[in-house]
Amino acid sequence: MPFNTALTHLLGLRHPIVLAPMGGVSGGALAAAVGAAGGFGLIGPSYLDEAWIEREFDIAGDTAIGIGFITWHMAKHPQRLDAALARRPRAVMLSFGDAKPFVGKIKNAGAKVILQVQTLAGAIEAKRLGADIIVAQGTEAGGHGAARALFGFLPAAVDAAAPVPVLAAGAVVDGRGLAAALAMGAAGALVGTRFFAATESLGHANAKARIVAGNGDATVRTRVVDIARGLDWPAPFTGRALINDFTTAWHGREDQLEAVREAELARYSAAAARGDFSTAIVYAGEGIDLIDDIAPAAAIVERMVAEAEAALARLITLRTRTLPV
Amino acid sequence: MPFNTALTHLLGLRHPIVLAPMGGVSGGALAAAVGAAGGFGLIGPSYLDEAWIEREFDIAGDTAIGIGFITWHMAKHPQRLDAALARRPRAVMLSFGDAKPFVGKIKNAGAKVILQVQTLAGAIEAKRLGADIIVAQGTEAGGHGAARALFGFLPAAVDAAAPVPVLAAGAVVDGRGLAAALAMGAAGALVGTRFFAATESLGHANAKARIVAGNGDATVRTRVVDIARGLDWPAPFTGRALINDFTTAWHGREDQLEAVREAELARYSAAAARGDFSTAIVYAGEGIDLIDDIAPAAAIVERMVAEAEAALARLITLRTRTLPV
Repeated sequence: MPFNTALTHLLGLRHPIVLAPMGGVSGGALAAAVGAAGGFGLIGPSYLDEAWIEREFDIAGDTAIGIGFITWHMAKHPQRLDAALARRPRAVMLSFGDAKPFVGKIKNAGAKVILQVQTLAGAIEAKRLGADIIVAQGTEAGGHGAARALFGFLPAAVDAAAPVPVLAAGAVVDGRGLAAALAMGAAGALVGTRFFAATESLGHANAKARIVAGNGDATVRTRVVDIARGLDWPAPFTGRALINDFTTAWHGREDQLEAVREAELARYSAAAARGDFSTAIVYAGEGIDLIDDIAPAAAIVERMVAEAEAALARLITLRTRTLPV
Repeated sequence: MPFNTALTHLLGLRHPIVLAPMGGVSGGALAAAVGAAGGFGLIGPSYLDEAWIEREFDIAGDTAIGIGFITWHMAKHPQRLDAALARRPRAVMLSFGDAKPFVGKIKNAGAKVILQVQTLAGAIEAKRLGADIIVAQGTEAGGHGAARALFGFLPAAVDAAAPVPVLAAGAVVDGRGLAAALAMGAAGALVGTRFFAATESLGHANAKARIVAGNGDATVRTRVVDIARGLDWPAPFTGRALINDFTTAWHGREDQLEAVREAELARYSAAAARGDFSTAIVYAGEGIDLIDDIAPAAAIVERMVAEAEAALARLITLRTRTLPV
């Protein structure tokens, strides 16, 4: 039996599970696979251009999908939003930056507006801006994000955003996390890292292998890759990644990294090109302890729903059983 | 109908709610009130001596309670553990440091051993040491703790610790949080900050008022108070507190604080003595957005259970209803 929430109603889904728009990882094939399985997929162009966006919409084909932008970066390339809207996405998600200039345009194009926030103040502002859906992203999330953790933030965001539905983002990798998010009043979950290790994701095979092998004790929120790549990410955003040789070398020594940026970028880029993730970054969330395989997106969705149902059944059992002495 | 878990079974409770041993805040009156309401109370001596411990056990009277120590500090004053064990606590919790030298002694005294951990590696080690109960403490928790957030950490700790029951600690302030923790497989929750603002807590009235007024966006994990007070907290532990003038002045400038430590300590201590929490610290977790009153501990327990039941009822409803178009 499905979980019917304000999210599944609003987007016409069977399951309250949304693929996070992981930059360059959530492409059309993955988004369509999540959609076909009853969830909803957002492709993630991050810093990529209209050609990437066009291609991934083509790959998704007839399955309804959406797209998620890095707001401050897209604002420098607004034609990318135009290209996306021309493809009639069911929803557009904006994260990291001032969404105000874009909300009306997205709504006028017939798409739902999803605004991702990292603070209670952000949730209040997103509601004021007219978000159709708000994503409360906790610090445990992979990739860019901020400092607040989900356990206290999510219910507070639900209260502040009501009646706007809120999705939980950050370390939701199995159905226990989905059930917990729903118990806190969320309308669903935005899931990234678990789908990075999906068969259909565009992530490098070596990066997927690191996520499967990874340890949630060994991630870090850091600016070192943004510094090396010369990306002007505004405060307070940092990226959560697997700790590797590069983060170990430079995290906490950001000023020194700035001084040798060009040489380090060359070294970094060469490593990325050859799939060497001891140097290149793997953005991933703290939920990786629970990721033990690379699986098709449909299997991930089905498993997550089944686990959430099992978690609910267990909760019900807690209230009726008497434990033996 | 109560939630029966491995915790309620092990400690003989009606509700899976444990009062965190907040230093100097969780005294005998609060611990006994939580116990009388069907939960379980741990008094928190932190850096306080046997006289404090004796007095708070006396105040708790006939209600079964427990006690929680800062392990590395108690190790310098082992007579405090002896004084506690002489009072026949139902459980002793150890946090922050090497528990190994004390586990056997506590068990031999007939008390359950609760070990609080902040990493998956810590959970594995706590199980190995023979913990009866493991507390998975997320970074969102008030007071001392570490970096991992609860949403990914809790289910991973539950898996690693099984069959040892795991409690969730960090930003569990209402029944939605309790229900979420149970959905993730926890056997209950360790609750601090919500009980700081209980009528019976030993917290200063001005500090309680700040917690009620507080904003979860405005807390920080910091070492500045430990530095000022000359407390040798080992890495990686920091204390989560409400941002105030003192944390704003010194957080990020720890080296400079060391240089003027004595003068700052005098100023800090004077502020603490007069209840001025613009300078003195209020340790509190990120869940404070959901704390809107000072209430008797029994009311807090009852509310939390009722809210958890409501959260469960809502989850069940999600699976059966069809939302209107």
